[in-house]
Amino acid sequence: MPLSEFALIQRYFSHCGALRADVSLGVGDDGALLDAPHDQTLVAAIDTLVSGVHFPPDAAPASVGHRALAVNLSDLAAMGASPAWALVALTLPAVDEGWLEDFARGFSALAQLHGVALVGGDTTKGPLSVTVQVMGFVPRGKAMLRSGGAHGHALFVSGTVGDAAAGLALEQGRLILADATSASRLRARFAFPTPRTALGIRLRDFAGACIDVSDGLLGDAGKLAAASGCGVDLDVDELPLSADLLAALGTEEAQRLALSGGDDYELCFSVSAARVAELERALPAHEWHYRRIGALSNVAGARVTRAGTVMQFSHFGFDHFV
Amino acid sequence: MPLSEFALIQRYFSHCGALRADVSLGVGDDGALLDAPHDQTLVAAIDTLVSGVHFPPDAAPASVGHRALAVNLSDLAAMGASPAWALVALTLPAVDEGWLEDFARGFSALAQLHGVALVGGDTTKGPLSVTVQVMGFVPRGKAMLRSGGAHGHALFVSGTVGDAAAGLALEQGRLILADATSASRLRARFAFPTPRTALGIRLRDFAGACIDVSDGLLGDAGKLAAASGCGVDLDVDELPLSADLLAALGTEEAQRLALSGGDDYELCFSVSAARVAELERALPAHEWHYRRIGALSNVAGARVTRAGTVMQFSHFGFDHFV
Repeated sequence: MPLSEFALIQRYFSHCGALRADVSLGVGDDGALLDAPHDQTLVAAIDTLVSGVHFPPDAAPASVGHRALAVNLSDLAAMGASPAWALVALTLPAVDEGWLEDFARGFSALAQLHGVALVGGDTTKGPLSVTVQVMGFVPRGKAMLRSGGAHGHALFVSGTVGDAAAGLALEQGRLILADATSASRLRARFAFPTPRTALGIRLRDFAGACIDVSDGLLGDAGKLAAASGCGVDLDVDELPLSADLLAALGTEEAQRLALSGGDDYELCFSVSAARVAELERALPAHEWHYRRIGALSNVAGARVTRAGTVMQFSHFGFDHFV
Repeated sequence: MPLSEFALIQRYFSHCGALRADVSLGVGDDGALLDAPHDQTLVAAIDTLVSGVHFPPDAAPASVGHRALAVNLSDLAAMGASPAWALVALTLPAVDEGWLEDFARGFSALAQLHGVALVGGDTTKGPLSVTVQVMGFVPRGKAMLRSGGAHGHALFVSGTVGDAAAGLALEQGRLILADATSASRLRARFAFPTPRTALGIRLRDFAGACIDVSDGLLGDAGKLAAASGCGVDLDVDELPLSADLLAALGTEEAQRLALSGGDDYELCFSVSAARVAELERALPAHEWHYRRIGALSNVAGARVTRAGTVMQFSHFGFDHFV
């Protein structure tokens, strides 16, 4: 769609997201012109959402716009970066102006909330998918890496985990709840996840390693541990579970989903034992919503424990609902 | 493909493209850490290629990898930027290691040639498409914009135009040529286009406006003119046509394809009349391969002229071969 593409990009993407003084030229030319700060490191990430894989084909376009940006902002949060700019590549089977308008609205609302300017876009014809690329900044030497953990570090996770997987199961009719309010809150955890930008920025001063929880806590904590040359022990009774998830599934199922479900976009981070008290003073857990769930160990792999005993854990995640 | 994704990205994207000292952290964490130069403006672009839309479903994977980067480098060239970093989001229907290896080879060869480091990647399951995001630098205030043209500017195009459209027609069996060498050269113009990076950088000192020719010269020259508040007159007899294209199609058909065919990734640029002689001295046309094809006018729209007379031009492009 060569000419209509141009008009579409102009119409929906020209005034999307935040206005920023460091954007010399935004959407509409061959490239965007951006002024990176002198004293900081640029952080860049990219992520694609494919219809039928990462969201249901009939997902609300505002949710698709929100999530496409949120999953990328979550990557920046995991590095401790302040987000700044985004580019969007949108592939659509046909020009549907209503869909585009809602998509742009969902994207723009989240972008404004996090101070992100949309500086470039590409619209192509094809099976529905969205790729977003984001850039942000972090003071030199202050980025949190997956590899920054060490044996003995305490491991934390923000918010609650498992909700988004339950929300998706509700969305797809694989799970049914009588409590409509609870169901709607869980669905919103999948459809409109909250990137933990402010927490990520504050954690730079305390955390060793950090990763965002996109593929399931057990797997992602395992990646963090492996990158740090460690293993990880997770205490199943310390997993932060929402009242909605517990009411919907009961404790054992909720714990399973918290470990294996994806799409929560919480932050999982390690803090050296010596600095835990300092973290908890500076960022009170009841204000910042995070919880200690285990520790990095010197035994490779991810182990789930209950009262100190290693549990057998089988990944069945979503399939359990089928 | 959560876990295999991780392994795939590591295997094929970790050592792809050029090594650069300004990459503090490349592929493998939540984001890349990059050191932007202090005295320059960052230039960012994004483009998607969809199977069956931008390339034939059975296209050679090395060509897909090359083109996905080339179309983005062409955007940077049109701004006059030096390319530096790229991120790739690859959506694949299934894990095909042979395909991935060839894709990465095609991408990496072009990236090395232009000094581009691959700093981030995302691999997802879905209908085949590739989105590449590139970043480069341009000295402050030196970027070429589409809007930098003015009435009276001479208009130029680099290389030859129409070849890629003929190459695609050959690829798709809509055009057949007896001369296999000539056919193979035209096909290569589609499958392995050359981004005009070096020319773009040199043109910063001379050009008013610049755009890359991706959707067809007439349309793209029209966009440049419109952004500059002008119209454009193109002299059909001045279009640079390759000997291969002329031999394949004859003059009139070659001219039509040169005006309406896409995918050439040449640069179309305007230079004020007063500076044309200076341009031609500094960048001799026979070395840098560009040609004057018309001028920006004060009559809105794009007009095709022959010996000063306005021609009726009908866009039929690809369809003519069907």
